[in-house]
Amino acid sequence: MKAFAMLGLNKTGWIEKDRPACGPNDAILRPIALAPCTSDVHTVWEGAIGDRKDLILGHEGVGEIVEVGELVRDFKVGDVCIVPAITPDWNSVEAQDGYQMHSGGMLGGWKFSNIKDGMFAEFFHVNDADGNLALLPEGLSPETATMLSDMVPTGFHAAELAGVRYGDNVVVVGIGPVGLMAVRGAVLKGAARIFAVGTRPNCVAVAKEYGATDIINYKNGSIVDQVMELTGGAGVDKVLQAGGTVDTFDESIRMLKPGGAIGNVNYLGSGEFIKIPREEWGVGMGHKMINAGLMPGGRRRMERLADMVLAGRVDPSKLLTHRFEGFDSIEEALMLMKDKPADLIKPVVSIKW
Amino acid sequence: MKAFAMLGLNKTGWIEKDRPACGPNDAILRPIALAPCTSDVHTVWEGAIGDRKDLILGHEGVGEIVEVGELVRDFKVGDVCIVPAITPDWNSVEAQDGYQMHSGGMLGGWKFSNIKDGMFAEFFHVNDADGNLALLPEGLSPETATMLSDMVPTGFHAAELAGVRYGDNVVVVGIGPVGLMAVRGAVLKGAARIFAVGTRPNCVAVAKEYGATDIINYKNGSIVDQVMELTGGAGVDKVLQAGGTVDTFDESIRMLKPGGAIGNVNYLGSGEFIKIPREEWGVGMGHKMINAGLMPGGRRRMERLADMVLAGRVDPSKLLTHRFEGFDSIEEALMLMKDKPADLIKPVVSIKW
Amino acid sequence: MKAFAMLGLNKTGWIEKDRPACGPNDAILRPIALAPCTSDVHTVWEGAIGDRKDLILGHEGVGEIVEVGELVRDFKVGDVCIVPAITPDWNSVEAQDGYQMHSGGMLGGWKFSNIKDGMFAEFFHVNDADGNLALLPEGLSPETATMLSDMVPTGFHAAELAGVRYGDNVVVVGIGPVGLMAVRGAVLKGAARIFAVGTRPNCVAVAKEYGATDIINYKNGSIVDQVMELTGGAGVDKVLQAGGTVDTFDESIRMLKPGGAIGNVNYLGSGEFIKIPREEWGVGMGHKMINAGLMPGGRRRMERLADMVLAGRVDPSKLLTHRFEGFDSIEEALMLMKDKPADLIKPVVSIKW
Amino acid sequence: MKAFAMLGLNKTGWIEKDRPACGPNDAILRPIALAPCTSDVHTVWEGAIGDRKDLILGHEGVGEIVEVGELVRDFKVGDVCIVPAITPDWNSVEAQDGYQMHSGGMLGGWKFSNIKDGMFAEFFHVNDADGNLALLPEGLSPETATMLSDMVPTGFHAAELAGVRYGDNVVVVGIGPVGLMAVRGAVLKGAARIFAVGTRPNCVAVAKEYGATDIINYKNGSIVDQVMELTGGAGVDKVLQAGGTVDTFDESIRMLKPGGAIGNVNYLGSGEFIKIPREEWGVGMGHKMINAGLMPGGRRRMERLADMVLAGRVDPSKLLTHRFEGFDSIEEALMLMKDKPADLIKPVVSIKW
Repeated sequence: MKAFAMLGLNKTGWIEKDRPACGPNDAILRPIALAPCTSDVHTVWEGAIGDRKDLILGHEGVGEIVEVGELVRDFKVGDVCIVPAITPDWNSVEAQDGYQMHSGGMLGGWKFSNIKDGMFAEFFHVNDADGNLALLPEGLSPETATMLSDMVPTGFHAAELAGVRYGDNVVVVGIGPVGLMAVRGAVLKGAARIFAVGTRPNCVAVAKEYGATDIINYKNGSIVDQVMELTGGAGVDKVLQAGGTVDTFDESIRMLKPGGAIGNVNYLGSGEFIKIPREEWGVGMGHKMINAGLMPGGRRRMERLADMVLAGRVDPSKLLTHRFEGFDSIEEALMLMKDKPADLIKPVVSIKW
Repeated sequence: MKAFAMLGLNKTGWIEKDRPACGPNDAILRPIALAPCTSDVHTVWEGAIGDRKDLILGHEGVGEIVEVGELVRDFKVGDVCIVPAITPDWNSVEAQDGYQMHSGGMLGGWKFSNIKDGMFAEFFHVNDADGNLALLPEGLSPETATMLSDMVPTGFHAAELAGVRYGDNVVVVGIGPVGLMAVRGAVLKGAARIFAVGTRPNCVAVAKEYGATDIINYKNGSIVDQVMELTGGAGVDKVLQAGGTVDTFDESIRMLKPGGAIGNVNYLGSGEFIKIPREEWGVGMGHKMINAGLMPGGRRRMERLADMVLAGRVDPSKLLTHRFEGFDSIEEALMLMKDKPADLIKPVVSIKW
Repeated sequence: MKAFAMLGLNKTGWIEKDRPACGPNDAILRPIALAPCTSDVHTVWEGAIGDRKDLILGHEGVGEIVEVGELVRDFKVGDVCIVPAITPDWNSVEAQDGYQMHSGGMLGGWKFSNIKDGMFAEFFHVNDADGNLALLPEGLSPETATMLSDMVPTGFHAAELAGVRYGDNVVVVGIGPVGLMAVRGAVLKGAARIFAVGTRPNCVAVAKEYGATDIINYKNGSIVDQVMELTGGAGVDKVLQAGGTVDTFDESIRMLKPGGAIGNVNYLGSGEFIKIPREEWGVGMGHKMINAGLMPGGRRRMERLADMVLAGRVDPSKLLTHRFEGFDSIEEALMLMKDKPADLIKPVVSIKW
Repeated sequence: MKAFAMLGLNKTGWIEKDRPACGPNDAILRPIALAPCTSDVHTVWEGAIGDRKDLILGHEGVGEIVEVGELVRDFKVGDVCIVPAITPDWNSVEAQDGYQMHSGGMLGGWKFSNIKDGMFAEFFHVNDADGNLALLPEGLSPETATMLSDMVPTGFHAAELAGVRYGDNVVVVGIGPVGLMAVRGAVLKGAARIFAVGTRPNCVAVAKEYGATDIINYKNGSIVDQVMELTGGAGVDKVLQAGGTVDTFDESIRMLKPGGAIGNVNYLGSGEFIKIPREEWGVGMGHKMINAGLMPGGRRRMERLADMVLAGRVDPSKLLTHRFEGFDSIEEALMLMKDKPADLIKPVVSIKW
């Protein structure tokens, strides 16, 4: 089969590979909508997971089942399904402890284009089909649904990690697609004022549509100073980090009230240590909680998010600024993600076979 | 001073009473906006708290401080404040355990027109001003703010009690003003589909504006049957009860999935026992949680809710279907609440002195 | 193979049945220690799950693997394993929502001697071996480990359901083996005073060893009155129900403080409705939470409990008052459970092949 | 009145000061048992709170009420009370948000020998007597009860911050008095194996009595390596930090499983940044939670802990290795705390007037 892959560090290209085999609990799908992710860019051009040879990329997609294992109860050939980026081993001890995204070891639920081939192929494999596929419901387009694979659950998880509650004032750092979903996720857990940190006009406009009340432009000076001024010196209850670096924690701690929390879903690509300022952290006694984690994946999460979209709580299609047709456009879409033109939020590729 | 009071069971009228005294931690306010509540109706015409003589009614209001105790730190004469219906003793052992609404004993945080005079008077007393008043922020009208005293926090508390989370499908039983706020509160904790049970056209229209996706009319047959059919037999994750009787629990348990929860904020006026059906409750092992409680009150809750209104998360002014002018209109507004004309949600009274 | 079964209502006996088949994810075990449970008695003599023909009984046991499916990662033939009474489908939507014991429907995680044959056989089948078996660690006898299948996790779950925390005063209703484990479970979540309700001298003695500070004998008058007197009228923070009937809830609500909770793990065999007294429940606003559920099962729970036994936190061997040798003794052990002599807590059967 | 004070950095001595005045909500007590704390040492000899002149030291004590404000409901002259080190303003917005220890600003609940005079005086002042005093119950000696002021709640809070649950394997870093209470606090929240890191023979012996199963001596090599070896490479579920520095977090993160948590109650005296290793923290996605906070104080916490001591759950008297008689011995006791002889855990002073 044909697939688009990482050939090695800084190199991508089309390759031929065998169609993956289907185990008794698994399924093989043909993609009908795909989206590239900044993580694909990190993987190829930043070496986020080390060097890899001919690793098929892609972990955001909707597909049609073409083969299904004999033990699969709830799905059959022909079903069109949303596929989460994170596909845990649900019977693992980590999942039983509530951390399915770390099944088999830290970040172990992240399999696509990491420990196995991704979705940018004519066919791709999904482990534990009953546990990790969700039927695409009527009324939800495959393109919009690709945003449920990663962008929506990752952004929403930031709000879960921080424990946003009724009336919290919240900073969202970074308003790329994940940050935008963090804005919406905060609204849908009860946030009051939301300070969105970002500058790109397209993203700023969408952030406001999703519920940001204030936009903080770091070009106008220190984020911390701006937030402290806007809150009359009080600071905020929660900071959701969907952008930045290991230094961002330093700013977040300074903006937080005691009893506040950081929810980080941002991949931290470099730096030896996370920067937590001792004094502003209350010399170890300030109750400024630091929570950071990979999004929960799996079937039920997809079903829950799809229900939210259908109920009109969140419209992820606003993220889709660039649309492509045809399997071959994957390459162009990924390069767009890499080059990040000013008006880009997310590209998506529609596929007909 | 002049006040509108319960004279005895089934009797209300205007009385003269001494202006209340102000303790060192307290404040005396003059009302500038007031709203009557169904609880006032329960108190007078259903004997909800027993017989009372010359008890001043009213627990939803915004007022201006006219006197303040010497130990009060944060408020001064002239401040216009939102006053919660529930004004806890914050240093009580119950509050320290997290249940301030039961300070000094079950329901002990409910003081207005219960264990002391209410707000339908030229002057009213607020215990622990620093703990129980919240400044009316700019941009929020006193009339809208009266909804923060009881309707908004009570409705929202139903969603808190049930623990609504991302993607829950939720039934809201009763769409009077509290139920409508439960609808909105569920949206703002992540509900997907919301089945609102009610029939009055005005309320149905507002329920949809607040986020209800489906309206269930009990005149069309069993609520349980309708919800089970609409969910394909799955049932729902949460039931918020803002109406009904001791029998409503029976229906709620039947609609709930295992692992689901009831959040009840409805006053249960009669019946010896709550009706929980043994078998549908999983013979005591079904994890269908039953949580029921009085709303949290106090200053910080008012501040949080006011922030949410200012951020545009909830617009309680939609509840205000009937508006009156002048302190004397309190009587007419209360009678309206008692008679419940078809187009009523909530009346409010604006007062100029 | 030979097995001990329910032949029909009120009838048990030895039968011949085919050895169960092993699916790719499953395992077949030979029992080396088994314990009968009051649930077996409910099943046969109270019709708890309806009439059944030739259903093999038994859900508490330790066994040796004799066959293992090809997809099982972590276990092999010859491994000696603790087997939980509850063996969920871990990839089910219910498990993903946190309620694995209800996988596939309410109580659906309870498979042994319910929806499939139990363990009182020469061989028994375990679904999802990786998810539902736990290696018997060195230092833990098979006999003691049978108590981890059901008694320990069920009793401990009562304390989890009620949310016992540091310094809670707790009533435990019923001090059979589950209630005794609820006593210990309460201690190990921070309970202060524990009022254990029971009368059998053997159980009373063990309750004290496990940490009960006060014994309440219902023969000395109303439990509620006794507890209220001993707490100076304050009532308690939590009630753990491991015995009683639908009427027990009435007493529990009366003993609870506002903000308190019931944790029920007791099987409720008869009565149409659970009895919750309206007024003492705060007319629907008292924050007296009612939580009731089947124990969590599965591998990780077994591992966690085994670690606790090895660390000396709980010694379940105190429950084992009657010990038998040989597979054939199962019948005698079950009859003992049925007849409940005064000195019985739990019987256990050791098996050599 | 006579008092023992910090005269300035690195200087202590006896001074004369006016007896504090009693506000309407407050109380004045005469100490009957007092204990010095490492925090007093930090204050004087490490400049933890900056330079201070004639600040009376001491925040662990039991006293007799000699004067009480007119608004105090529950206490009267002559009552003997436990006094928590942390005495929050219970009506503050922070307390209403659940963080009473930060009332009025970060760490603002810590008033004694910080923002007002401490307890090492003939008389000391307690703000909000109803909210911050707890009657010394019969059966609890004043000396043992001094450990409830700070050592017990601080140690226990580490287990709360980390969220210890049934079967967690836990490392406790530091087994001075707070760490020892963290060991006991972990047992009483369900810990299985407890790895206590320390070397002093006295502390090691008491750690075992409190429930430590393994002792880790850092002199035998890296703590991380030792813990990883003892857990077969799995790491632990929780790390409670009651000792160490900003570098300790680096080790803790390395020992933690994904989904684990640090509970830090250790005062961090120096270093600009807390050291969180990026990679072992899962590049920002490992769900290794970092929670750090000042203990909760106030009346109810004291009552809960006293109930636990009376129920035999924890015996803090094991901490009291050195006992003194007479108010004047405070100086000697503090110097002992400063010099930390090998056999010291905590000194306590009994006072008769």
